[in-house]
Amino acid sequence: MFQKILIANRGEIAVRIIRACRELGIRTVAVFSEPDEDALHVAMADEAYCIGPAPATRSYLHIPSLIEAASKAGVDAIHPGYGFLSENAHFAAVCKTWGIEFIGPPPEAIETMGLKSLAREAMLRAGVPVVPGSEGTVEDEDEALEIARRIGYPVLVKAAAGGGGRGIRVARNEQELAQAMASARREAESTFGNGAVYLEKFLEEPRHIEIQVMADKHGHTLHLGERECSVQRRRQKLIEEAPSPVMTPELRQRMAEAAVRAAEAVEYVGAGTVEFLVDRDGNFYFIEMNTRIQVEHPVTEMITGIDLVKEQIRVAAGEPLSFTQEDVAFRGWAMECRINAEDPGNRFLPSPGTITAWEPPAGPGVRLDAGFRAGSVVQPFYDSLVGKLIVWGRDRQEAIARMQRALAEFHIDGIRTTIPLYQEILRRDDFRQGRFHTRWLEEEVLAGPAG
Amino acid sequence: MFQKILIANRGEIAVRIIRACRELGIRTVAVFSEPDEDALHVAMADEAYCIGPAPATRSYLHIPSLIEAASKAGVDAIHPGYGFLSENAHFAAVCKTWGIEFIGPPPEAIETMGLKSLAREAMLRAGVPVVPGSEGTVEDEDEALEIARRIGYPVLVKAAAGGGGRGIRVARNEQELAQAMASARREAESTFGNGAVYLEKFLEEPRHIEIQVMADKHGHTLHLGERECSVQRRRQKLIEEAPSPVMTPELRQRMAEAAVRAAEAVEYVGAGTVEFLVDRDGNFYFIEMNTRIQVEHPVTEMITGIDLVKEQIRVAAGEPLSFTQEDVAFRGWAMECRINAEDPGNRFLPSPGTITAWEPPAGPGVRLDAGFRAGSVVQPFYDSLVGKLIVWGRDRQEAIARMQRALAEFHIDGIRTTIPLYQEILRRDDFRQGRFHTRWLEEEVLAGPAG
Repeated sequence: MFQKILIANRGEIAVRIIRACRELGIRTVAVFSEPDEDALHVAMADEAYCIGPAPATRSYLHIPSLIEAASKAGVDAIHPGYGFLSENAHFAAVCKTWGIEFIGPPPEAIETMGLKSLAREAMLRAGVPVVPGSEGTVEDEDEALEIARRIGYPVLVKAAAGGGGRGIRVARNEQELAQAMASARREAESTFGNGAVYLEKFLEEPRHIEIQVMADKHGHTLHLGERECSVQRRRQKLIEEAPSPVMTPELRQRMAEAAVRAAEAVEYVGAGTVEFLVDRDGNFYFIEMNTRIQVEHPVTEMITGIDLVKEQIRVAAGEPLSFTQEDVAFRGWAMECRINAEDPGNRFLPSPGTITAWEPPAGPGVRLDAGFRAGSVVQPFYDSLVGKLIVWGRDRQEAIARMQRALAEFHIDGIRTTIPLYQEILRRDDFRQGRFHTRWLEEEVLAGPAG
Repeated sequence: MFQKILIANRGEIAVRIIRACRELGIRTVAVFSEPDEDALHVAMADEAYCIGPAPATRSYLHIPSLIEAASKAGVDAIHPGYGFLSENAHFAAVCKTWGIEFIGPPPEAIETMGLKSLAREAMLRAGVPVVPGSEGTVEDEDEALEIARRIGYPVLVKAAAGGGGRGIRVARNEQELAQAMASARREAESTFGNGAVYLEKFLEEPRHIEIQVMADKHGHTLHLGERECSVQRRRQKLIEEAPSPVMTPELRQRMAEAAVRAAEAVEYVGAGTVEFLVDRDGNFYFIEMNTRIQVEHPVTEMITGIDLVKEQIRVAAGEPLSFTQEDVAFRGWAMECRINAEDPGNRFLPSPGTITAWEPPAGPGVRLDAGFRAGSVVQPFYDSLVGKLIVWGRDRQEAIARMQRALAEFHIDGIRTTIPLYQEILRRDDFRQGRFHTRWLEEEVLAGPAG
């Protein structure tokens, strides 16, 4: 087992990894940017090194500084957390060069899953369903009509060079398709200087459901069930739960098998997440694979009892998985709210500043993974996540009641947080009855009178 | 279901009950003594009433003040917590008179289990093993020899009027018995003015293992497994865990059946605990039944997933138990350390005062049930428990590592606590290997160089 691990991250995930190391008897090395000198993860680690100023490109993303700290501290391994360099194949390869174990999958797996076209190809070969669409760009209306007939309406016409929601049109029938092609092309041409478009099936009110997988270096790839992550704002997950309210044992089995195939197709090692969109008929489509620990991993931990971060570390050290597929049993219901330093009453503006009061909830079924405490400063340079409030209940109803109780207990002063938004969501009938999709929050809650 | 509940207690258990009520949508009424005006349970409740000055006899134990507050607030029920009036049959009866549901068993069950001789008789009738001994006092040496021959050596000679460990002698054979009789009688005569003695089998290095039972008003009595409570100082439990390191499925089955028989024998309702001593050969003997929620109830909650306090409330409201015996499944390992405001480095002197810093541990598998926060005052008038740190792990080894991690994170200033003692115990090989008994802490840890 490793003697010493460097954590190439900050905030709650750095604290989370330090806790896992402590329980495994491994010494921890924190790194920090200049403004993070007094951060909680720095105080909690056994050693800490400053790796440069903000912004992240000059510190948390600066590979030479990280490798220098790792060498100085003499670590066996680096845990990248999520974000920053966690899905950077080059960094994973550099670690290897320096004889440092990168706690994550091989660089090749990161590479494949990081490139949309490569990942889509690999999934098609592995028999994992992907969102149906054109292979590459669509030249003219006739070709578009033919593809749309094959994949079924409604379809999306999307700018090949697109991004940020520009150059996208929905077509629900042949008449609309002609117009959509012309209109998307015009916008693509004027916005991106490139009129090329492609076609994709449009999923109505899909859910975002992902499967947690875990693989060791001895050829075992297992799954740990799903997480429901459909409550999103601008594609950022806000509430996650496990299991999903719409899951059936049969659908779980099929999605889990696809996720394991996806991981095996890229010779995956460690913890990974295969994300799917699920339509109202229970069809599911691969979106992407996140080749790292996920922000929302605690909900899986709480229903399975398996510590995913400790398992990542063990697997990276060459140990076989500490459980079999038969050992993975689901108990009860877990739910997570991401506590962001943002003002939900004012267009989610970031709310950096000093946390003057921090009174966390506690008691039965409540877990808090936070990167901050009273006196901590929320810096403007980084993402706004200050902590994750996770609860467990025997069933979804108990989990919701417990989350409401815990949110009411949580007292934070000095910054604004998303707590009031969660209180609003948890009161909604749709949410309580499990009726929501990826655009539900924006369309039904934030667009409404309370938004 | 009840609309409003008064909590006739203070500290962590009052907070625990408030949390349960919140999750059930029940309004809460706190009561407090004058020095407890700023206590956490008062701040957390929906309403609060001052019921008099310290000491407890003038407030928390003062039945008229409690009933007055209950009437004023218009509550449906009173939860007594543990300690104070929780095992006072008269209080339970008074509540009934006032049309207030007492959240606990019927007064008759409290009465029977509260009187050692009645309880012993009831258990013998129900076929629950009790510590073998003389029926009543022993007149002379010949009678003592005969009884000792029947129950087997070693035996204890105990003063009938005794208490506080005075007037007790061990005899390991017939020669020692004669001396022990004479010596115990002399001490009993001089100490209590009453030389009467009785005989009891002496259990060597016994373990204290208790069974949690739960009964509703519809005739269902179930068990929720055992708790290991052998780490004690002066008969006060300090560390509790579930399951017990020495438990086997077969022993659990036999002890649980005995515990259910004990509860049924007194027509028990609600949460109760049947305490046993277990000898090295796996024989177990009833000590007493605690007719209330137990301090250490969270370890059972963490391995079963069942919220005992919510279940108490539901059962008191007339609902049937929300689970069957088959639903009760045990997962993993839970451990609790009682964080007391005492100085383990100085003969466990109470350490009242203002808590100037309170930084609780958090993260995976950690639960904190506390009655205090930063700024809270630990009063000298009440017991020294400030909170309970509970952890869960997949196995005992993970639970121990997690407890060590959590204890190291827990930062309390302004008062001394028992945290350093737990850090010492958790390092001990005997403890780590599950080898301890009710006198182990005092004989092996506190009497040693570190004690």
